[in-house]
Amino acid sequence: MALNKKPVTGMRDILPREKQIRDYVQNVIRETYRSFGFTPIETPCMESIGNLSSKQGGENEKLIFKVLKRGEKLDIKDAQSEEDVVDYGMRYDLTVPLTRFYANNENELPSPFKALQMGNVWRADHPQRGRYRQFMQCDIDIIGEPSNLAEIELITATTTTLGKIGFHDFEIRINERRILKAMAAYCGFPEDKYSEIFIILDKMDKIGLDGVEKELLEEGYAQESVKKYMELFRGLSDVKGIEEGTKYLQEKLGGYLDAEVVESLQQIEQSVNAAKSADFELVFDPTLVRGMSYYTGTIFEIAMPQLGASCGGGGRYDKMVGGFIGHDVPACGFSIGFERIVLLLLENGFTIPDEKKKTALLIDRKFPAGRLPEVFAKAKEMREQGEEVLVVRMKKNKKFQKEQLSQQGYQEFVEFYND
Amino acid sequence: MALNKKPVTGMRDILPREKQIRDYVQNVIRETYRSFGFTPIETPCMESIGNLSSKQGGENEKLIFKVLKRGEKLDIKDAQSEEDVVDYGMRYDLTVPLTRFYANNENELPSPFKALQMGNVWRADHPQRGRYRQFMQCDIDIIGEPSNLAEIELITATTTTLGKIGFHDFEIRINERRILKAMAAYCGFPEDKYSEIFIILDKMDKIGLDGVEKELLEEGYAQESVKKYMELFRGLSDVKGIEEGTKYLQEKLGGYLDAEVVESLQQIEQSVNAAKSADFELVFDPTLVRGMSYYTGTIFEIAMPQLGASCGGGGRYDKMVGGFIGHDVPACGFSIGFERIVLLLLENGFTIPDEKKKTALLIDRKFPAGRLPEVFAKAKEMREQGEEVLVVRMKKNKKFQKEQLSQQGYQEFVEFYND
Repeated sequence: MALNKKPVTGMRDILPREKQIRDYVQNVIRETYRSFGFTPIETPCMESIGNLSSKQGGENEKLIFKVLKRGEKLDIKDAQSEEDVVDYGMRYDLTVPLTRFYANNENELPSPFKALQMGNVWRADHPQRGRYRQFMQCDIDIIGEPSNLAEIELITATTTTLGKIGFHDFEIRINERRILKAMAAYCGFPEDKYSEIFIILDKMDKIGLDGVEKELLEEGYAQESVKKYMELFRGLSDVKGIEEGTKYLQEKLGGYLDAEVVESLQQIEQSVNAAKSADFELVFDPTLVRGMSYYTGTIFEIAMPQLGASCGGGGRYDKMVGGFIGHDVPACGFSIGFERIVLLLLENGFTIPDEKKKTALLIDRKFPAGRLPEVFAKAKEMREQGEEVLVVRMKKNKKFQKEQLSQQGYQEFVEFYND
Repeated sequence: MALNKKPVTGMRDILPREKQIRDYVQNVIRETYRSFGFTPIETPCMESIGNLSSKQGGENEKLIFKVLKRGEKLDIKDAQSEEDVVDYGMRYDLTVPLTRFYANNENELPSPFKALQMGNVWRADHPQRGRYRQFMQCDIDIIGEPSNLAEIELITATTTTLGKIGFHDFEIRINERRILKAMAAYCGFPEDKYSEIFIILDKMDKIGLDGVEKELLEEGYAQESVKKYMELFRGLSDVKGIEEGTKYLQEKLGGYLDAEVVESLQQIEQSVNAAKSADFELVFDPTLVRGMSYYTGTIFEIAMPQLGASCGGGGRYDKMVGGFIGHDVPACGFSIGFERIVLLLLENGFTIPDEKKKTALLIDRKFPAGRLPEVFAKAKEMREQGEEVLVVRMKKNKKFQKEQLSQQGYQEFVEFYND
């Protein structure tokens, strides 16, 4: 069979320039999160297919790359369905593996446990520009902290990291699942329809308030409810601060909204602003939904001005770890959109700060082999002084060779001739 | 279906202590190799099954985790064999992906191309202690350099890296496929049996010279050939240096051994010793075989005194890239045994040098929520001074909590009370 030069469909080769930026960004992320007491962990890229198909992954579960059984366990001829031939799958996110990890290692982990995970995930999505079937995710999670200490640390750590990478003037949009629910309840929507309503609400940034209103009416929701709902959002449309927004809602919603929700969000705002070290704004966004059904409380999202879409997000998911260990453990996480960040940096011609000086040693073809040790001794000396040193044979077209090396960042050249 | 807490068979969760050491080692590897002009790349973890089953992977091809086809391409009921249901596989090494990568991106890469790859590979091997089905490989390769500049740089870069991690008193054992062949030819073994003979020779470190002799005779090789072969190895048994060893062989083998082979090895010895910055010895080992059939010239291996087995190795494979692009391109690579290195460090109680100071801020439960911003402002200040700072709620058993935090490396504590 002829060999295929191309990567498999929807996946890609990462060339040195991008890979160096990725490594740099990963290092900044790791160092910054570690300064907040997060510790790195790693889980296998494969999970048992049962864990991946437990309905916590939503739509992503349809996109799993499945792994064939091996050896005697595999009987292809008699197989009737996928279940007969598959035992593992590639992880489609890092949250399911994290909760399994926590359940498996609970006794050896501190409480609360602050985890940092960076790793590839796989989704057999339709390939499209800028969207790949293998991509890096970067998650921080705090497991075992019921209070908003978790939210404060997650938001502060993530914004500090983004600032260190070089981003500024961005927003962290924040909302609460319980606010979403209180608003829906106050308007008299039926409780079993909340999820459907939130899916429509989630389209706000694309179709606007009028679009949302139209769709809700088309879906047959009571005119009066829709009208009340729209009035709430109109009343909040100029509000950015958490304090102002939650006060407005508290007045409007009265008993529908738990005072504790409001207090907690206000505390988050105060502490995040006290610990702020990047140039960003924390913004209350009552239209923020976040797709995953496992969120139970606070939800948040990074909004970059340069980017139409979100650049990461997260929230509290207090009921998910329980699926593995039988009793609930509070949890809250934040996922940085690693691929989008790298894309933004590449598009903006990002250069890595504080790179080492790069020197190339060029050896003429008549330079005697017996004197090669001189070249390598010189290279050793320069490397020990902190330089990046390339040792190469001089090509016939030395000028062109140097031009090419310059493009790779080599600013200085030392030439070795037989003299 | 009940969720499964355990990782899939033969794979494992990596906890913070080990993960931090892995990150540290990866950083040292990356920084050191970069100082030698190697540039990092990344390839997808999956490759088309045809590329992985091209016979270049030897026994590893039997251990491939295979990925199920998706959507309309998949017809399980009518499937007769694995080929009908599988299109991709998980990579079992980094060499096949590297050669495909080079073929795919040749025009955008410098020549010679010095690549650094660190990534997971998967092998459905029998699980056993210290051997996992997902593990990290760490390869450097120089593609497009026909001369021994490649070997010199690979050996120097790898030994410098090992030295920086903290290893000393190790050996790099070196041999040449063409020496192996010249020795076999001189003894009159039939050429089509060389591979078989080298497989037996490869057992030298386990069964000794007498064991090898016995097995060769049992396999039916001519007594005279075996006798001559054994005499050669006996004559070399006290030799460690390349110069001495190759001179001995040159005298014995005469025209069977190409003078260029000897000169090249001697040049490697001189230059590696001139560029040496770690405490190791370059040793000539005429019994070194290296399993993979794709090697065409120099072969080498890291021997650690603390470890029975090899801790990495590599060699020249001038014919492999050609499988993808139709014409041969010289190539030479070195793979560090990343997992074994980490295991050695863990067993020896390795601590990461120059770790940041770690401080925990403990918040008493009566500390008012309104004053939380003070705590986070303090944390911010300490983090900006380069500390790792954990903000946690004080537990009822504060003494125990502090003991546990001490075990995680927190040496200082600041307590926040309502005063």
